[in-house]
Amino acid sequence: MAYENKDMKPKVAITIGDPRGIGPEVVVKALAQASLRQVCAPLVLGDFHVLSRTVEALSLGLKVIEAAEGARDFPPEVLPLLPLSHFPPGKDFRDIPPRDSSRASFAYVEKAAQMALTGKVDAIVTAPVSKEAISGAGIPFRGHTEYLADVSRTEEFVMMLAGERLKVALVTTHLPLRDVPHLMQEGRIRSVIEIVDKGLRDYFDRSAPRIAVAALNPHAGENGLFGEEELIISRAIQGACKKGILASGPWPADTLFYRAKQGEFDAVVSMYHDQALIPLKLLHFEDAVNITLGLPFIRTSVDHGVAYDIAGKGLANSRSMEEAIQLAAQMAHKKLKSQSSTL
Amino acid sequence: MAYENKDMKPKVAITIGDPRGIGPEVVVKALAQASLRQVCAPLVLGDFHVLSRTVEALSLGLKVIEAAEGARDFPPEVLPLLPLSHFPPGKDFRDIPPRDSSRASFAYVEKAAQMALTGKVDAIVTAPVSKEAISGAGIPFRGHTEYLADVSRTEEFVMMLAGERLKVALVTTHLPLRDVPHLMQEGRIRSVIEIVDKGLRDYFDRSAPRIAVAALNPHAGENGLFGEEELIISRAIQGACKKGILASGPWPADTLFYRAKQGEFDAVVSMYHDQALIPLKLLHFEDAVNITLGLPFIRTSVDHGVAYDIAGKGLANSRSMEEAIQLAAQMAHKKLKSQSSTL
Repeated sequence: MAYENKDMKPKVAITIGDPRGIGPEVVVKALAQASLRQVCAPLVLGDFHVLSRTVEALSLGLKVIEAAEGARDFPPEVLPLLPLSHFPPGKDFRDIPPRDSSRASFAYVEKAAQMALTGKVDAIVTAPVSKEAISGAGIPFRGHTEYLADVSRTEEFVMMLAGERLKVALVTTHLPLRDVPHLMQEGRIRSVIEIVDKGLRDYFDRSAPRIAVAALNPHAGENGLFGEEELIISRAIQGACKKGILASGPWPADTLFYRAKQGEFDAVVSMYHDQALIPLKLLHFEDAVNITLGLPFIRTSVDHGVAYDIAGKGLANSRSMEEAIQLAAQMAHKKLKSQSSTL
Repeated sequence: MAYENKDMKPKVAITIGDPRGIGPEVVVKALAQASLRQVCAPLVLGDFHVLSRTVEALSLGLKVIEAAEGARDFPPEVLPLLPLSHFPPGKDFRDIPPRDSSRASFAYVEKAAQMALTGKVDAIVTAPVSKEAISGAGIPFRGHTEYLADVSRTEEFVMMLAGERLKVALVTTHLPLRDVPHLMQEGRIRSVIEIVDKGLRDYFDRSAPRIAVAALNPHAGENGLFGEEELIISRAIQGACKKGILASGPWPADTLFYRAKQGEFDAVVSMYHDQALIPLKLLHFEDAVNITLGLPFIRTSVDHGVAYDIAGKGLANSRSMEEAIQLAAQMAHKKLKSQSSTL
């Protein structure tokens, strides 16, 4: 990526997630990479002492400094932080009371959303929080993505997971498998196709994205033998095609992801969690990025959880965070470029 | 593979499948490979003129000869055939009436089963037939595998798909997805684990196979939040473990196949068709082999259908057939060796 001028370097807010999880570690490890600093101007939303201790423990040679909201363009050895919690120095962050840790993790996300909504940053990247711990701390919270949708008044959004060789989008997410067939609704499926189409046009270099839609049943339902779900999916595809979208399917899921990997499609719309996640994780176990499409701002996220069990041990793999920041920067750059070209 | 003497070279019966499909083509292409002829003594069950025409059209330099049931050890340029149908010479096999073609395809399988059951061959390999076409020709037929189970009085059998990097076994197969959750039965799941364990011991070099069992719901059901299916699967695993089997799970399906590919497990027991077939086809699109475990004889099969649309064009990829023959030979060799060592 080349920047015409410094102002084209996208501003990216990065939350550190739950201080008791691996979020702070993957954030500082990622931002220690000079290559990432070349493509974006990061601002970390978190806690001074949590970050300082993490940087020290990992001997990363970074200097955490408290920065103002609008500050930018720090040298790569500086980690600019907007402090939103104030845990005491010298304390092992695993000793922070879960309630305080969870409330802080929520405050970072709250601020990130606010900054994105008011245009103070060009994209946000989130490290993992614990949904259960935040709810347990008395804050009504259905999940990271749901919160961002609520606060931005977004009705229809789509979880997309992306790697170099495969991009998958989900019609349904965290649900019992037995509920999935009942949720095959033409309107929802068509919305997902449309949001994916727009996402690929806006943020990726796709002027006419080829979107494959997976069938729900094996062998694409064997011509209706297995139920009417494939008929519903077909109608959704036809609806999208009428709007000029290059959608196709419903394709038998067993061969579809191989075809997508071979380059036949730009993204696959999947009907349920494991249908999408099995092939995605098989190809991109370490480096998949979670993108929320449909929000009024750019948001990427790591593809893993808080991993309390390995937190503070220096063992966390930061690949997904690196890719999430890189991708957010790319998406923001693409958007900034298209905005400046239409001025 | 090295053979101590010629008699250790396993006898493998290979059906040509539906003469109107790509079966004859993939069989002759596979058997034209000298390497395959070194590991087994094949006997093709099919039709003289169908095979001769196919060999000619592909300029394979093979000579089809009619052989007796017990005949063996032909030179690699000879294709020994047990003729079970007699279509006229010079006729384009695509002009064979579907009824005749289907009946013939059934006769090949019938004979193969008979030979396997009476010990005249050490393994059978089947090329694709059309279930619909055979039923349409007035023969009650629920499918290749089901027929072999019926004729050998096998109550419990398992479809396994195998490639070099991944082996998957299925608890349920061709069903609407909505029916799958209701079929999570402890007895069936435990049987599948046991049959897979025995299959890996008998036919592969695994003295203590590590068998991973997939969960049905995303995130392995999030500790029971998504229903009781994971509890049922857990009980089945515990039952198998009590018999000394190294079974584990239920594992979240999204990361499980990656772990298996990395070598953590020898096989994955999957709950439904696409859960198993999506990762399998992603890793082994061309070279996966279908193995039926639980039958009283060795049976492998290609991983594709009749493909009428490309039949007779010389376009069919014979990789799956080559692997199916190779694997059947390996499995038979392993069994013959263990039998001779216990004599």
